Amino acid sequence: MGDEQHADNGHGSWLTYRPEIKVLDCTIRDGGLMNDHRFTDDLVRAVYQTCVSAGVDYMELGYKNSKVQFPKSDFGPWKHCDEEDLRRIVGDNETDLKLSVIADAEKSDYKTDILPKEQSVIDLVRVATYIHQIPVALEMIHDAHEKGYETTVNVMAVSTVQDNDLEEGLRVLSESPVGTIYLVDSFGSFYSEEIRALTKQYLEVCQASGKQVGIHTHNNQQLAYANTIEAVVQGANRLDATIAGLGRGAGNCPLELLIGFLKNPRYRLRPILDCVENQIMPLRDSMHWGFDLSYMLTGLLNQHPRAAMGYLGTPEKDRESIVKFYDEIMDV
Amino acid sequence: MGDEQHADNGHGSWLTYRPEIKVLDCTIRDGGLMNDHRFTDDLVRAVYQTCVSAGVDYMELGYKNSKVQFPKSDFGPWKHCDEEDLRRIVGDNETDLKLSVIADAEKSDYKTDILPKEQSVIDLVRVATYIHQIPVALEMIHDAHEKGYETTVNVMAVSTVQDNDLEEGLRVLSESPVGTIYLVDSFGSFYSEEIRALTKQYLEVCQASGKQVGIHTHNNQQLAYANTIEAVVQGANRLDATIAGLGRGAGNCPLELLIGFLKNPRYRLRPILDCVENQIMPLRDSMHWGFDLSYMLTGLLNQHPRAAMGYLGTPEKDRESIVKFYDEIMDV
Repeated sequence: MGDEQHADNGHGSWLTYRPEIKVLDCTIRDGGLMNDHRFTDDLVRAVYQTCVSAGVDYMELGYKNSKVQFPKSDFGPWKHCDEEDLRRIVGDNETDLKLSVIADAEKSDYKTDILPKEQSVIDLVRVATYIHQIPVALEMIHDAHEKGYETTVNVMAVSTVQDNDLEEGLRVLSESPVGTIYLVDSFGSFYSEEIRALTKQYLEVCQASGKQVGIHTHNNQQLAYANTIEAVVQGANRLDATIAGLGRGAGNCPLELLIGFLKNPRYRLRPILDCVENQIMPLRDSMHWGFDLSYMLTGLLNQHPRAAMGYLGTPEKDRESIVKFYDEIMDV
Repeated sequence: MGDEQHADNGHGSWLTYRPEIKVLDCTIRDGGLMNDHRFTDDLVRAVYQTCVSAGVDYMELGYKNSKVQFPKSDFGPWKHCDEEDLRRIVGDNETDLKLSVIADAEKSDYKTDILPKEQSVIDLVRVATYIHQIPVALEMIHDAHEKGYETTVNVMAVSTVQDNDLEEGLRVLSESPVGTIYLVDSFGSFYSEEIRALTKQYLEVCQASGKQVGIHTHNNQQLAYANTIEAVVQGANRLDATIAGLGRGAGNCPLELLIGFLKNPRYRLRPILDCVENQIMPLRDSMHWGFDLSYMLTGLLNQHPRAAMGYLGTPEKDRESIVKFYDEIMDV
């Protein structure tokens, strides 16, 4: 049992852990989608220090997306993660915490913007791709791999992908040098039972090719944490989470819940509690993430949260009723 | 598949439903634990109308607890659910919605306070018991059964009960005339995998004796909804939920999420959305329920939420830090 998160019967067996499990904090990266990546250096530094103190394995700071498509004047530094911006926060990062960035297929000038590993504090490059962009993603994976980085691929919006296409996509990715393939619930629409079946499907492909399975969830139906631990129980070993669930729309799996669940003594909850209270919750005055009925409805309908974000973007006094939003969203 | 909530593979099979599933709204009952059962008649009537419109099967209005132990001067009407209070809201309840009350073992003068069924609008009497009170609970079940009511028994705090005791308790209850035995996660401490194992255990006992299994959850670890649907998938057919999760401490499984999940055309989400927005959310100015780090910590430690309720009961400006609360609660 020493290498199991817990035993099959589930009850009274919470005393062991699975050392292969690695946690990636993406507070600044996913949260950046709610403020055009304009966090203060102090906030980013506080999250970095929290990740170091909490024993988290990876911290993702932001995107490596194109400065042509996303001009520097329109976004904060974490849309591009220039080396000088990273080093302003982490120095040479002489810690056990590894650093990560993500690059979107067709939105990244990765060939020039991602430096060779020896010139960067970045350890891990993650490639985010929709199913139809997999050929682009494969080139990005090869590029990052050849530059010396660890790599993952995050296949987005799989809740809208046909079974055959997903099978074929996973097969192609499994033949690449990518280290981890992530199951991503972009719309927060999956129930735990679906996560169970999909994790098994991903694992089958990944185990045959020596790769890990990762999980990245959204909280539209208050299942982000539940779905993450369901994937863990099935065998996923790479887990995304964010402090206080900060992330796009309904947010992500809260890191504080996940660390409470994992029994690896490497992880410490106390610094995360402090960061939630003193760093992240104060952001709620200016940033609005987390569960809302409008996100629940887009999740139920397996839609991008766009409509809900528009709804919630209207000042509260001018906002229409949730019933009216429901009527509109159902009228397709 | 017509009688299944969904098929085993879980993926792409959300088009069927299980007609045996019944939903019980306990917004007023569990929420009453946060305001000494002092809801206005207008609010109780609005929740009643919502349950009728939404096609919910049962609505629980409150407790049938002792007026000696809990004087009428200290509590609102839903601590005792006198017939005249009930009828002021529901008249003769000429609807398809059944009405429920709950009575706590050792806290109820049930022999006198629960009238014969023909004199009452109540349909269902639920008995709440700790494991050591089962002999009392059995007498209460017999009393209610003989008076003509449907009955359930809610065995509380099973996360603190030894396996052998639970097995024996379930066996004794299965020999009573009770209709449903509820799995209750009083402290919000169970993970979905534990719910899975326990639901199976309850089902084994209940199926042999022709009873149903129910599920009642709390949201300390943001798993109330996830654990409820996990129990559904395993075979639980009686589901407790509350509008906007209103309930003690971290609250309960939100009815709006549950109705979204269940595919029975009998249920309608629209009136619940309206009730959340216009009736329940305005209560937040004076009532504080729902997820909080302090509830997460009592849940993690499998403790009664008492310490967290005390912590949150302190005015915010005088409240100690969450890290200090963590240090204290860990120092046992």
